[in-house]
Amino acid sequence: MITASLRRPRLSRPLRWSRLSSSFPCVDAHAQRESRLRADSGPEPPYARPNPASYRTYHHPHPLPLSYSLTPLPSFDIAYETWGTLSPQKDNVILLHTGLSASSHAASTPANPAPGWWEKFIGPGKAIDTNQFFVVCTNVLGGCYGSTGPSSIDPATGKHWATRFPIVSIFDMVNAQFRLLDSLGINKLYASVGSSMGAMQSLAAGWLHPERVGKIVSISGTARSSPSAVAMRFAQRSVLMADPNWKNGFYYEGLPPHTGMKLARQIATITYRSGPEWDLRFGRQLRALPESELPNPSTSTSSPHPSPARPPALCPDFSIETYLDHQGESFCLKYDANSLIYISKAMDLFDMTLPALQALNIKPSSSSSPASTDAEPAALQPHKTSHSKSHPPPVNPPPHLPELAAGMAPLAYIPTLVLGVQSDILFTVEQQREVADALRMAGNENVSYYELGGVWGHDTFLIDVLNVGGAIRGFLS
Amino acid sequence: MITASLRRPRLSRPLRWSRLSSSFPCVDAHAQRESRLRADSGPEPPYARPNPASYRTYHHPHPLPLSYSLTPLPSFDIAYETWGTLSPQKDNVILLHTGLSASSHAASTPANPAPGWWEKFIGPGKAIDTNQFFVVCTNVLGGCYGSTGPSSIDPATGKHWATRFPIVSIFDMVNAQFRLLDSLGINKLYASVGSSMGAMQSLAAGWLHPERVGKIVSISGTARSSPSAVAMRFAQRSVLMADPNWKNGFYYEGLPPHTGMKLARQIATITYRSGPEWDLRFGRQLRALPESELPNPSTSTSSPHPSPARPPALCPDFSIETYLDHQGESFCLKYDANSLIYISKAMDLFDMTLPALQALNIKPSSSSSPASTDAEPAALQPHKTSHSKSHPPPVNPPPHLPELAAGMAPLAYIPTLVLGVQSDILFTVEQQREVADALRMAGNENVSYYELGGVWGHDTFLIDVLNVGGAIRGFLS
Repeated sequence: MITASLRRPRLSRPLRWSRLSSSFPCVDAHAQRESRLRADSGPEPPYARPNPASYRTYHHPHPLPLSYSLTPLPSFDIAYETWGTLSPQKDNVILLHTGLSASSHAASTPANPAPGWWEKFIGPGKAIDTNQFFVVCTNVLGGCYGSTGPSSIDPATGKHWATRFPIVSIFDMVNAQFRLLDSLGINKLYASVGSSMGAMQSLAAGWLHPERVGKIVSISGTARSSPSAVAMRFAQRSVLMADPNWKNGFYYEGLPPHTGMKLARQIATITYRSGPEWDLRFGRQLRALPESELPNPSTSTSSPHPSPARPPALCPDFSIETYLDHQGESFCLKYDANSLIYISKAMDLFDMTLPALQALNIKPSSSSSPASTDAEPAALQPHKTSHSKSHPPPVNPPPHLPELAAGMAPLAYIPTLVLGVQSDILFTVEQQREVADALRMAGNENVSYYELGGVWGHDTFLIDVLNVGGAIRGFLS
Repeated sequence: MITASLRRPRLSRPLRWSRLSSSFPCVDAHAQRESRLRADSGPEPPYARPNPASYRTYHHPHPLPLSYSLTPLPSFDIAYETWGTLSPQKDNVILLHTGLSASSHAASTPANPAPGWWEKFIGPGKAIDTNQFFVVCTNVLGGCYGSTGPSSIDPATGKHWATRFPIVSIFDMVNAQFRLLDSLGINKLYASVGSSMGAMQSLAAGWLHPERVGKIVSISGTARSSPSAVAMRFAQRSVLMADPNWKNGFYYEGLPPHTGMKLARQIATITYRSGPEWDLRFGRQLRALPESELPNPSTSTSSPHPSPARPPALCPDFSIETYLDHQGESFCLKYDANSLIYISKAMDLFDMTLPALQALNIKPSSSSSPASTDAEPAALQPHKTSHSKSHPPPVNPPPHLPELAAGMAPLAYIPTLVLGVQSDILFTVEQQREVADALRMAGNENVSYYELGGVWGHDTFLIDVLNVGGAIRGFLS
């Protein structure tokens, strides 16, 4: 028999079970957001009303060949921003690639003084030193911050592309960026730099245009998306596409799938951070109670643990839950749902093994030079791979490593920085080693490899100025 | 310029972008399921029509005190099954605890010959040898397979409890199980055995009833849910509760939130398995195409990679995606959504540190013995903890380890097997070490600790008969 409860003082406000059924603020939030959006008939979500004064737009009026379609994209826009000064020789250009949902606004500019997503890394004297470099960052093809994507108007129909937009690849994004570079008269990059999906683009740039890329920086990326990462992105797309507002992607005349976006962002946030950080930051700390929910101070004090005085609910109890809730809430109207679907799919599809590259409808730029039109380009021949002298082959190489090395052969002569984080669960440290091993196996003798500790997981590239910034600065100098 | 596409043969069935907008089988599946359920007006989901002939039911007509409420549960049922023969001394009983969504059907019985969820581990000569032991397994309190839970009828109203059901804890589940043992005249367990959530129950049994538990087996469990695990379960609850069919839990008169359940199960599956297994099992293999989708064999062969001949879609392309889709689909009508919410919440709340235990409305059974009614029970005093002679303290103990050791003091004299799996991302190996360290710090000199390699992650306990079964068998003998 358990009798302790009989000795407890009674609360002045009795706790009834029925309180559970009457209060689901975490669910009500969706309906409230829906009502708010419906009432605000005018303003569209921020992504639907970008401010073209805050970035520049390059319009490419010609077709762009696509990796997975025989029909090219008829034309496209690319939004971009720049920092620093282009040298007269145009030889100081860094092309900066973004992660999945970022805009071209990597750092503040006179036209847009708001801090950018890599504010601490870009500027005079910073890791990417704008006293030395001319930095170009674009919103990717498929995005929603000024570049052409599913939320753009299809010139052929005058309507939003929606899910009539073609599947685009990481390579297609990079090809679009190089059309912009062409328009700026930039023939060769000093470096191609990117983190997360940006690291995929950074490697893809070296594959597509080996003669136009001086150095490559790949931070927390991969050359071949893993099934675990595909699984996490599939889960996000699934919750998004199940939102009744999604309507097979044709939601632009109505309300966006804001609930699905919130749920997807919650899942994404789990993959961006790591357990060790949350242990330190949140542990089992309870969420802060609003005054209306505080227990009567005359009869009990708020417990630091769930208890009869502070009974748990089916909605968030712990700080980790309110953190995820907040991350989802603050993102769900900032980004276009279809862009999330298309770009996360492009990440899933990214695979630099030779057979996967051979299946694409695009080829490295060297293949279109007059000298090689009749022959298969060298990169598409099975490449004789061997490890560089200073780096013996790994002890337990994944079985696809030789195919990856063969696929990455065009990058054999581009000095490359590969940096990964041991607590990253999305782009694991094994994948970082794989990139470095494949490059070395392809004969690249200039691979710098760093592996960081720390608790921040995948998001380390946004946070760790000292170590990430330091490695970049050293490699670029 | 990229010209390769011009040389490709044209497919006889031209690939148009519009195919994307017309075909979302992964989304249509939700609407089709909804229609099917609506048409099948009669049959309810399987959990709503259990077969009481296949298990026994214990009805407890008295109130059960609850951890987080001053109001007890007025009465309850517990469904259970047994294997083996109860010895005349009733000293050969193993209480087997389940994971989150399992029924009492751990192994086949004459009344229900279908294989159980631990079929390979229970039986004559098996790891849990029914020639020797009398095994009892229950459906947990809060479940939907015959035990009282949110889908049960509240006797006070004649209606489904739904979300008027009180929050239950792992300790409440175990207390309900011990009422069943009381009814069977079983005073002391030979062992309390469980994996995953069952491991939490197994430890909770030792805390609540130290004098009634002979040995404890804790496999891939924890004594204190981590913020990462809470995050993964929060994501599942969030997608479930956002399903319009959920209706704040009052869906029993209508259709269940089957879409939310499918999405939640997809997320759960990611936490149950592991990256290394998926690398081996799926890699980047594409899903099998139904005949209707196969490319025309006269013009192209199906590529093993996404390509213009086999263009990717926004729905699943990879086998890992169809695997997750299938896992969700096959589960979404088998289990009650509210049970999933309540039981996953109970897991989140589980915390055996002393301050968390002191906040509960329940106490270990020794506290109700006549000798201790006036004094706080020993377990609730801060306990002087020290490491056992044979096990020095860990090098980098988590800061809460002394509080955990103090909370687990009642288990100091119960021989305990702690087994974990290095590839488990839900109940990490660090948490397994924490359980063993806390027990040893509490003075327990009989802690057996095993750490398994292998690629199966959290689900190892369902699969690895050789290693998991072997450790259990050795420990119980």
